[in-house]
Amino acid sequence: MKKYCFGIDVGGTTVKCGFFNTEGQLLEKWEIPTRTEENGSRILPDIAATINAKIAERGLEKDEIEGIGVDIPGPVKEDGTVDLAVNLYWGYVDVVGEMEKMTGIKTKALNDANAAALGECWKGGGAGYDNLIMVTLGTGIGGGIVVGGKVIAGAHGAGGEIGHGHAVDDMTEPCNCGNVGCIEQVASANGIVRLAHMILEKTDKPSVLRDKKFSAKDLWEAVKAGDEVADEIAEKFGFYLGRELAIYAVVTDPQLIVIGGGMAKAGTIVLDYIRKYYRQYAFPACKETEFALATLGNDAGIYGSAKMVL
Amino acid sequence: MKKYCFGIDVGGTTVKCGFFNTEGQLLEKWEIPTRTEENGSRILPDIAATINAKIAERGLEKDEIEGIGVDIPGPVKEDGTVDLAVNLYWGYVDVVGEMEKMTGIKTKALNDANAAALGECWKGGGAGYDNLIMVTLGTGIGGGIVVGGKVIAGAHGAGGEIGHGHAVDDMTEPCNCGNVGCIEQVASANGIVRLAHMILEKTDKPSVLRDKKFSAKDLWEAVKAGDEVADEIAEKFGFYLGRELAIYAVVTDPQLIVIGGGMAKAGTIVLDYIRKYYRQYAFPACKETEFALATLGNDAGIYGSAKMVL
Repeated sequence: MKKYCFGIDVGGTTVKCGFFNTEGQLLEKWEIPTRTEENGSRILPDIAATINAKIAERGLEKDEIEGIGVDIPGPVKEDGTVDLAVNLYWGYVDVVGEMEKMTGIKTKALNDANAAALGECWKGGGAGYDNLIMVTLGTGIGGGIVVGGKVIAGAHGAGGEIGHGHAVDDMTEPCNCGNVGCIEQVASANGIVRLAHMILEKTDKPSVLRDKKFSAKDLWEAVKAGDEVADEIAEKFGFYLGRELAIYAVVTDPQLIVIGGGMAKAGTIVLDYIRKYYRQYAFPACKETEFALATLGNDAGIYGSAKMVL
Repeated sequence: MKKYCFGIDVGGTTVKCGFFNTEGQLLEKWEIPTRTEENGSRILPDIAATINAKIAERGLEKDEIEGIGVDIPGPVKEDGTVDLAVNLYWGYVDVVGEMEKMTGIKTKALNDANAAALGECWKGGGAGYDNLIMVTLGTGIGGGIVVGGKVIAGAHGAGGEIGHGHAVDDMTEPCNCGNVGCIEQVASANGIVRLAHMILEKTDKPSVLRDKKFSAKDLWEAVKAGDEVADEIAEKFGFYLGRELAIYAVVTDPQLIVIGGGMAKAGTIVLDYIRKYYRQYAFPACKETEFALATLGNDAGIYGSAKMVL
């Protein structure tokens, strides 16, 4: 009976590391820098070294370790290899093969947004559910689709790339992905600010947001303070994202939709705007699907990575 | 080692029955009428009787039978119960419980569109793939999502209800589901005829379709004959369905999209119109996802039902 596992969340600037017992308790967490020089070739050796050091520090044997889960900011194929991860300066990397060689411990790899979904499903806002859609409203929109307690990686590592469903017909500016009109362009933290400027330009109504630089956080504060234009912006955001999630929901028919990422810090008011339009557009059997806020914050990735190997 | 199984496809007028070996060969198929009188209470007893009779006729023992798969035209929950199947005049029915009681054989139940998806994935247009979206373009649009070789039933039995994603903003007529603007309203066999009338009304161009009653089949014949307006209609159909499938594809990132149902009989030209717009709207990693025609026709349900129990 193995007792421990590691959950590793690789980001563009830091690698978050979690040491868990196999019941899913986080026993210790720490960070190391992500060294992206030399095409990111030091990243996996650094991770292997910190894991090997942690095992030695705690006086453990390697056969007490169930496995290592590693999440990567980019598409990860089912065999645990990556073809491209721009934020790590990686081309092709065999994450699982290299990690297993350097640690002697069974490793699995997954996309970071998918890992966050799995983490929230296991110990966060989706605990107790095994069929959910996780939506991360950050700079962009990430996501993860969990069905039967497992995350759907997809044929090209693009399962749960739900920031890039088409949503906006009258958009002219291209999305980072190269398409035009993705939901991310109006409903991520950056997207809602873009949407706000589009709406502010079309109205003369007074607003605390007018003629200044503002963030998604400022916008939600204006909504809560009763600013009329901010409310219109939040309605339009809810319309786009609620309708898009209703479309996604006919695919996997989730029990629960979990909303996380920086913008979810504004609280349940974000869910209220989304849910209103979700219900309008959802297939009748799915109209009462529940919404919840993510609860693990930046730890979702290490939890999900750990869950992968359990 | 059990040798045989049954795949049963329950429709509103007939029940299709398949007797398979456990390698997946269809050894015999036959039909019985669907007796919907008395709130459809005779349907399952009739099925049990024909199965028991077939076992006796072939001189088999019940312990040679691996199981019975039954598909139902309506949402089926994970426990094998149905809350409502309007075409069978059913309210709540415990399909699995009743069938097991009457036959003494392990039974599983599934929605009919999901069963067809599983059948096509096993022995039809999707053979060799384990992650696909099956789209059935019939009177309405049915569908099934297969991931890891298993069909996603969904939290409310609505997994793969892909006819009811929102697609058309300027629709005013309600869909059968109660919502307005579902993809089914413009891209099913009935839907494309509706779309055709909308387009014919807006143009004075001559067309063989003008001022007469026509079916989806007639329309595709006009497209093949080079009718300019018919081509415009097919383009618009391809735009709506291709774009919608591109949205669905970010959820499960399929290897393959299989198109079946009556309208698929028009052939690969249908795929060409859909693929063109799919590629325009798909997330970059998913743009090369393959399209294929379904090949099992009306037998997809019995194949999928049989697969369920193997």
